[in-house]
Amino acid sequence: MSRSVSASVEPAVLAFDIFGTVVDWRSGIIHQGARLGRRRAIEADWGAVADAWRGRYVPTMRRVNAGELPWGNLDRLHRLMLDEIAPTVGLDMLDEADRTELVHAWHRLPPWPDAVEGLHRLRRRFDIVTLSNGGIALLTHMAKTAALPWDAILSAELVRRYKPERAVYDLVPELFGVPHARVLMVAAHLDDLRAARAAGLMTAYVHRPLEHGPDRTLEIPAEGEFDIMAADFLDLAVRLRA
Amino acid sequence: MSRSVSASVEPAVLAFDIFGTVVDWRSGIIHQGARLGRRRAIEADWGAVADAWRGRYVPTMRRVNAGELPWGNLDRLHRLMLDEIAPTVGLDMLDEADRTELVHAWHRLPPWPDAVEGLHRLRRRFDIVTLSNGGIALLTHMAKTAALPWDAILSAELVRRYKPERAVYDLVPELFGVPHARVLMVAAHLDDLRAARAAGLMTAYVHRPLEHGPDRTLEIPAEGEFDIMAADFLDLAVRLRA
Repeated sequence: MSRSVSASVEPAVLAFDIFGTVVDWRSGIIHQGARLGRRRAIEADWGAVADAWRGRYVPTMRRVNAGELPWGNLDRLHRLMLDEIAPTVGLDMLDEADRTELVHAWHRLPPWPDAVEGLHRLRRRFDIVTLSNGGIALLTHMAKTAALPWDAILSAELVRRYKPERAVYDLVPELFGVPHARVLMVAAHLDDLRAARAAGLMTAYVHRPLEHGPDRTLEIPAEGEFDIMAADFLDLAVRLRA
Repeated sequence: MSRSVSASVEPAVLAFDIFGTVVDWRSGIIHQGARLGRRRAIEADWGAVADAWRGRYVPTMRRVNAGELPWGNLDRLHRLMLDEIAPTVGLDMLDEADRTELVHAWHRLPPWPDAVEGLHRLRRRFDIVTLSNGGIALLTHMAKTAALPWDAILSAELVRRYKPERAVYDLVPELFGVPHARVLMVAAHLDDLRAARAAGLMTAYVHRPLEHGPDRTLEIPAEGEFDIMAADFLDLAVRLRA
């Protein structure tokens, strides 16, 4: 991964995707699920639970964006998705308190090892904000738990539409009063970056090979598709001279 | 000031007014105005400038809330107000760059001496957020300059209405998913606190006797009008057992 940001364009604000890009949702859900399982004597394949749960993510967002589901923040949708998958992953016995606890597990996910230090470096030179489908409360609690030094918490919740809808990407230039071309979207996901680019934002791909666990191979973007390709947030800081 | 928060009610989120409550806008504007004045060889009574400028604040918000002025964030309104007062305070000679610089002075205001330490203490126990008529970019840059450790930046800009409109106060319970009665509005201003209380929020009055300079006497609220009366943020932390 060799491409550095073009010297002619300097971003003002860096907007970060969160799940998979900043935090390791899969390990976090497995760990917290297993802890709940031990306490409640529930046997489950928590890796399969995490994957099935996250597997409902994109289709559920789509249903909200298409108007098939009324607006609900990600906590509400996580609960809906959990109720949907519970029978298929052997978790029918979960009671109300268990389900609430698991939904809140998404507020307490571990950052990737480079994330906190990388963000601190980037923050010295740029405004760094979240731009996630997670809700404001979720992102706020995650920042506190994981010590993520955001300058501001922005969320799809503020426009009641989910990424990849354009309104979400427009939030950053609108609220920061900067041109779209001076906002850099940072994400580990091609669909997110492609939508950001279509909205006029700069894009940085960060490689997170373990997002879906050790057994999945990721699609790597073509050289040149995005403005920056970085191995992790420390590499991103170097490329941005932060 | 003796009233402590009722033991039966525990706030979850503390929402802070900013100008006058967290930062000393008057000293900040005087200081930055005087610096611009020295550089540009402009003579002015910067205390009078600060007072006249801030004097346009409430009437201008009212015009926006009444629909007499189109929505604009506080930067835009600060510019409008500055243009209005410039002839009356002998600042007609300010050029475009000067005016932009002065508008941005509101992004770089000094915190009251107790504010940063008080917020750090309160943050250990509560979610602490801004709830200001200042815009998201303004509040974000101010937090960075003044090292204010907000958990999230909320602003009237998110609902495109200004305090004391109820929609602004509703933002916090809505986004944090908590009842109104578990949100504590912290402010040095009676009108802000009264509107917060009318919206169903808890209220904490913080005494900022120097907000309008050394020569103004403040109206002190009656004992019992608000849930908490605090001398400063350290006193507020003690009263909230943070």
